Amino acid sequence: MPGIKDRVAIIGMGCSKFGERWDASASDLMIEAVNEAYLDSGLTTADINAAWVGTASSFRTGQPVAEALKFNYIPITRVENACATATEAFRNAAYAVAAGIYDIVLAVGVEKLKDSGFSGLAIPEAPNSGVTPAAPPPSQFAMAATRYFHKYNISIDEGKQTLANIAVKNHHNGSLNPKAHFQKEIKPEQALNAPMIAWPLGLYDCCGVSDGAAAAILTTPEIAKSLKSDYVLVKALGLSVGAYGMLRDDWDFTYFPETVNASKQAYLEAGITNPQEQIDLAMVHDCFTITELIIYEDLGFSERGKGSEDAAAGKFDLEGDIPVNTDGGLKCFGHPVGASGIRMIYEVYQQLRGTADLRQLAQPRIGLTHNLGGRPGSFTCSVGIFGSVNTT
Amino acid sequence: MPGIKDRVAIIGMGCSKFGERWDASASDLMIEAVNEAYLDSGLTTADINAAWVGTASSFRTGQPVAEALKFNYIPITRVENACATATEAFRNAAYAVAAGIYDIVLAVGVEKLKDSGFSGLAIPEAPNSGVTPAAPPPSQFAMAATRYFHKYNISIDEGKQTLANIAVKNHHNGSLNPKAHFQKEIKPEQALNAPMIAWPLGLYDCCGVSDGAAAAILTTPEIAKSLKSDYVLVKALGLSVGAYGMLRDDWDFTYFPETVNASKQAYLEAGITNPQEQIDLAMVHDCFTITELIIYEDLGFSERGKGSEDAAAGKFDLEGDIPVNTDGGLKCFGHPVGASGIRMIYEVYQQLRGTADLRQLAQPRIGLTHNLGGRPGSFTCSVGIFGSVNTT
Repeated sequence: MPGIKDRVAIIGMGCSKFGERWDASASDLMIEAVNEAYLDSGLTTADINAAWVGTASSFRTGQPVAEALKFNYIPITRVENACATATEAFRNAAYAVAAGIYDIVLAVGVEKLKDSGFSGLAIPEAPNSGVTPAAPPPSQFAMAATRYFHKYNISIDEGKQTLANIAVKNHHNGSLNPKAHFQKEIKPEQALNAPMIAWPLGLYDCCGVSDGAAAAILTTPEIAKSLKSDYVLVKALGLSVGAYGMLRDDWDFTYFPETVNASKQAYLEAGITNPQEQIDLAMVHDCFTITELIIYEDLGFSERGKGSEDAAAGKFDLEGDIPVNTDGGLKCFGHPVGASGIRMIYEVYQQLRGTADLRQLAQPRIGLTHNLGGRPGSFTCSVGIFGSVNTT
Repeated sequence: MPGIKDRVAIIGMGCSKFGERWDASASDLMIEAVNEAYLDSGLTTADINAAWVGTASSFRTGQPVAEALKFNYIPITRVENACATATEAFRNAAYAVAAGIYDIVLAVGVEKLKDSGFSGLAIPEAPNSGVTPAAPPPSQFAMAATRYFHKYNISIDEGKQTLANIAVKNHHNGSLNPKAHFQKEIKPEQALNAPMIAWPLGLYDCCGVSDGAAAAILTTPEIAKSLKSDYVLVKALGLSVGAYGMLRDDWDFTYFPETVNASKQAYLEAGITNPQEQIDLAMVHDCFTITELIIYEDLGFSERGKGSEDAAAGKFDLEGDIPVNTDGGLKCFGHPVGASGIRMIYEVYQQLRGTADLRQLAQPRIGLTHNLGGRPGSFTCSVGIFGSVNTT
């Protein structure tokens, strides 16, 4: 099987301002993101052959996209796949281009949570398995934190400091991002002394609940070449859906098998054999600070049990070896569920092209995105890998 | 662009019994359909590289599929696209195979409506457009019926007789189908004297509200050839999403531009230049009898205004030139929203392979499926074309 590597290019991207967008409907947010992608690519509505929209709760079909973006009877598919929803819209759009079905397609992710009754932190779970505790996300990930600290012999104080440092890093990055929901620095003490949400996770260990949209225009590398010199190549798109986690003897809440599996797929497809050396930056699913810590290890950026140490040494900072969540992450950019995956690709796209302004890294060539949705034990995880034009 | 023609093969299909399945959960229905597809293909869970699930309201992600079917961390995508939901799962699965990303994939559609609070005929519309009447489906399609009769100078009595004949045909076909929700013949008088739902549409002009699931296993023609001699080839997959219908000066409720556009795409992709000659059978979206009548014309099976005459002449009967809804259609097989599209492909697959038992047609070679979701003016319409193995 040839895989997706270097067979699909991104020629335009856009991202709305994320945050409490009481001023904008889901359609408005989508128009904001897509218009930027049109400007970026030099293309317009008439150039789009087909579209995919990712949204968890803003629309149920592709039809509102036809209406908002004034498409003329083209194919529009809606996908929903937990927090990987946007990446899934992107993935299916990319396969249609790689299959040679369409020349130029749009993938857009959108979510309007702030006036939809979305309960955020306390979102209830539909208990569809006898072994799943009907616990909201913070308490699920809190169990990962306490178990992680226990397994690696980390005191609660040390552990909370590590998590606070991750929040501080992402707030710093977010403060450099004019599109982020939260654009302010915090000090470690603020995180450490914040109201408790689910012990040991405090307010600053939890990501934002936001409105937003992000869009990508995809085509073949041949067409991309004819349109711009700094397009970005899709190197891999992995997806892994779990069903067994909590029933596995060897699973203990300190790693997520879905991230391990999705990244294994993606590394194989992209030809990555040493992620620590070959990945230059990553946007990962920091729904909680403990999630980001575990993801460092699941993606192979840190050895098992060493994520804390590596983070303390600055490995994942803007100036580090593998900057993570350079745009502020879910923590500060915000988390409109159906938009987050393409928001991550948006930041990688800017970084690879040298257009990330105050957050710009020194000549990154390969970037990774990672989404994790659902609950520990049965996640939906997507991993994407993208490369600058000089990486074919 | 090469299109999908003859690049993807169906090597196994399954379909649950449709109906009031109080005995089965959505997962049970899915297992029922997928197990039949496994038996039909000789493959099993371990052979599936990736899956797509179509469902409107039974699941929100791919995760319940991993759990029910015991998949081991493979990619599973959920798509929802109104009444085209199942065909959309199939279409995206087919593109991934055509792109060479996976060897063998599963597309499954499922819906459990009978215990979900689904209101059926009176389903309320979310009014998301200033020009859309917040009318339930029967009244929307009733307007199509009265306008159609008016435009073509058909008296109400004649028109109701035409519609009754379509119901009688589909009930006849359904009576030959052990998996259909309603397996009994009706007489025209029963349809004509049935309780009125939305004038002039009576009870027998409306399709069933059912539980059910259907599944397809897709692969490349090369692999298909190594597994069985009577696989079925995907010839085309069109999709058209409308936004403008009600605002168009030339649109009058007597045709559906989305069907016209989706079939145009599909005919082009499959190389169909004369559908009346080249299409041997069709499963179409008879949510209401008037819908089936209009679809005859939109697909080019009848000249404009002649659908009524052609139907009366038996053109769409089991013995006719283009048998339509040989399995009973939505009217009698039932309409579990997220399953219907793959249910249609299931019947075409059986007919093309000569395994449709009492409903078997004489050596059909090319079959068409058609789904129409949403409301007049802004439908989501998919059209698929499939060919027997000797049509490459």
